[in-house]
Amino acid sequence: MPQSRQLHLGAFMRPVSLHTGAWRYPGAWPDANFNFAHLKYFVQRLESACFDAFFMADHLAVLNMPINALKRSQTPTSFEPFTLLSALSVVTERIGLVATASTTFDEPYHIARRFASLDHLSGGRAGWNLVTTSNPDAALNFGRDDHMEHDERYRRAREFYDVVRGLWDSWDDDAFVRDTQSGLFFDPDKLHVLDHKGPYLSVRGPLNIARPIQGRPVVVQAGSSEAGKQIAAETADAVFTAQSTLAAGKRFYADVKGRLDRLGRPRDHLKILPGAFIVVGDSREQAQEKRAFLDTFVHDDSGIASLSIALGHDVSGFDLDGPLPEIPETNASQSARQRVLELARDKGLTIRQLAQRVGGYSGLEMVGTPADIADQMEQWLVEEGSDGFNVMFPYLPAGLDDVVDKVVPELQRRGLFRRAYTGTTLRDHLGLPRPDNPFFSKAVRA
Amino acid sequence: MPQSRQLHLGAFMRPVSLHTGAWRYPGAWPDANFNFAHLKYFVQRLESACFDAFFMADHLAVLNMPINALKRSQTPTSFEPFTLLSALSVVTERIGLVATASTTFDEPYHIARRFASLDHLSGGRAGWNLVTTSNPDAALNFGRDDHMEHDERYRRAREFYDVVRGLWDSWDDDAFVRDTQSGLFFDPDKLHVLDHKGPYLSVRGPLNIARPIQGRPVVVQAGSSEAGKQIAAETADAVFTAQSTLAAGKRFYADVKGRLDRLGRPRDHLKILPGAFIVVGDSREQAQEKRAFLDTFVHDDSGIASLSIALGHDVSGFDLDGPLPEIPETNASQSARQRVLELARDKGLTIRQLAQRVGGYSGLEMVGTPADIADQMEQWLVEEGSDGFNVMFPYLPAGLDDVVDKVVPELQRRGLFRRAYTGTTLRDHLGLPRPDNPFFSKAVRA
Repeated sequence: MPQSRQLHLGAFMRPVSLHTGAWRYPGAWPDANFNFAHLKYFVQRLESACFDAFFMADHLAVLNMPINALKRSQTPTSFEPFTLLSALSVVTERIGLVATASTTFDEPYHIARRFASLDHLSGGRAGWNLVTTSNPDAALNFGRDDHMEHDERYRRAREFYDVVRGLWDSWDDDAFVRDTQSGLFFDPDKLHVLDHKGPYLSVRGPLNIARPIQGRPVVVQAGSSEAGKQIAAETADAVFTAQSTLAAGKRFYADVKGRLDRLGRPRDHLKILPGAFIVVGDSREQAQEKRAFLDTFVHDDSGIASLSIALGHDVSGFDLDGPLPEIPETNASQSARQRVLELARDKGLTIRQLAQRVGGYSGLEMVGTPADIADQMEQWLVEEGSDGFNVMFPYLPAGLDDVVDKVVPELQRRGLFRRAYTGTTLRDHLGLPRPDNPFFSKAVRA
Repeated sequence: MPQSRQLHLGAFMRPVSLHTGAWRYPGAWPDANFNFAHLKYFVQRLESACFDAFFMADHLAVLNMPINALKRSQTPTSFEPFTLLSALSVVTERIGLVATASTTFDEPYHIARRFASLDHLSGGRAGWNLVTTSNPDAALNFGRDDHMEHDERYRRAREFYDVVRGLWDSWDDDAFVRDTQSGLFFDPDKLHVLDHKGPYLSVRGPLNIARPIQGRPVVVQAGSSEAGKQIAAETADAVFTAQSTLAAGKRFYADVKGRLDRLGRPRDHLKILPGAFIVVGDSREQAQEKRAFLDTFVHDDSGIASLSIALGHDVSGFDLDGPLPEIPETNASQSARQRVLELARDKGLTIRQLAQRVGGYSGLEMVGTPADIADQMEQWLVEEGSDGFNVMFPYLPAGLDDVVDKVVPELQRRGLFRRAYTGTTLRDHLGLPRPDNPFFSKAVRA
């Protein structure tokens, strides 16, 4: 069966890597959180490999960890996404630039405006990772003692999206005529005042930015709850999801694509991109050694705290070099706890090893030769587990260089990934149409 | 008397110029609102002339003008300041980058974070023009039917500043040790949790950005009310002010510097920079011709609306080529009205000419040869009318090129302006000290 679909690849980035031990890995750049030259290197290498997008993770607080764990981690501080991606837009030409922004702790006028501005700056490469912010610590930085409840966050998010989308459509694509002779700068018939009044938001408009190059910047969703999947099916262009196995990935894929069918949206108008942690070796054994070596850099202070949080039980008193004893049931998230218990059992890990895995990274991973990794990616694509991946690098820069230099060429040889960009915008890369402006296109152009 | 003080020069920018007719001036770039290459040209030319800062004007709404006036103007849309200045930081090395941000319609955690991020990106060149946003239309874009009353805006602004400043001090300058051997990424004794609870704001912190390169980005204030002058004296590093005459400038200068004396702040820790609209000619006559020619590009629709708003009286029914008749008193701002009436009388302008002046620009201007302009700037400096200027260009790019190529060399010849940057940060350019972190420096270093 010919495989005509190709993979879409995003790079899910933190400047020093998402893995808590990565900053200590030999050759790492531990100062990357505020070193623009390093970020420039990463994005330019990813662009040379024709990645769809550079995707900046984000938080609105220093993570709530015991200070003894937090002090071991590179995560507390880094560049803010809008400022960083705007700067990166200048040193790149094609790769998409996706920033995380919260519907719970920001204003739709600001969000619509910044993404539209980034889209103009970058020639149509902006994407918005729409999150509702599940971290209750963020609330304390924004004047709220109580974090908004989950379903209410999603109801606000849905309305917030509608407002942002409406603001992006404030001006028709050809509103600005700039006729120096007559003195007409814009055609007033092509200006739309949104005048939104809803349960959560009241926003008049119009936006003080011309319609984005892409019509609307790409919208990415990351929620996997019922509410999250539904808002994704209704609004998103891409979904970034955590799926630990191909079986789980296929269920998620069928679920979300089915929602598109029921909404009358074409299936290929929403790309599903699970996160995948890629460790490349010249042999399978070497890759596994690298993977294990990386975990040794997770400090016990950090690993034990993460494991205790995941289990809802303080494990610091146990023998770290022994197996995990029976742990009584607690109030901790049952799914997180179950995943950790399965990991301990399946891999036969000591408590220390388990702590290092949980404190570092314990989701979907592909560890092996370039051919092994390409095999797995191909299987996910062919069996409809995904439309591609958001790649996470175990350490930087070497883990990224390995993917760019070894995995991508293997995917290209198999016809599974582009050898050159065929379009200029992020929508082009993702195979998404440029949306019309509903306020004008029908009336004016029909 | 030797003049040892030098001028500080900022460039107060809108992409197409602040003058409503400028986009129609021969040689103008009317598409500059979304043309990054043009903005890059402007900032690089200003850096070549050693300007202290590139200062981006901003609004949080499309200006509230009758649509027939609005459609004549280049002002409704342009790049958003944070995204634009972040991009410009990549193509410059020394010039300061000042963005406007509102304390009324944004959150201190966001504001502290973005300026800190811009400061890290630019190597210490960020500045915050702290505004309380007087435009009531902005309120409608942020869920408020009523605009916050003036004095309350300023009380909130004062608290907002304290929070932002506290967040910038979240980490000591040397908090991040990144010791790969021991696995210590930061020293927890050098992390400060703000825990602010005040009348308007409640913000826990810490900020998820390392202490800015400048310690704190430069803070610029633009208010000229009593509350505005007092908050400037208490918090600002620079004041951007509108002063139409040297006499008024000297009164303002003495007033604000006097407030510094009473607060125990050194006088030179706050730079006062009035806006000045500069039109350069090879002769005085040629400069005045350019100035008059520019006004002819203000469309009647635009000029008449502006004049009517300024007078609080519809002038559209009058003979535009005749003098302004007696206008009854109204509810319009008395100072604005008075200034317009004086302008009409002093210059003997017809209603059309007056409308074009008011619709274009009618504040402090310096129109003449490079020597004329340098004479005026020198007089303001020597007589303590200002510490320099925020220069406004009548049209772009030629008006900017004239200042860079002709006025700045004249100032340099007179020893009134730097020939090369002597420092790397905006604080360096403005002659401002780098602030210590009060949470740590005394306790830890004393």
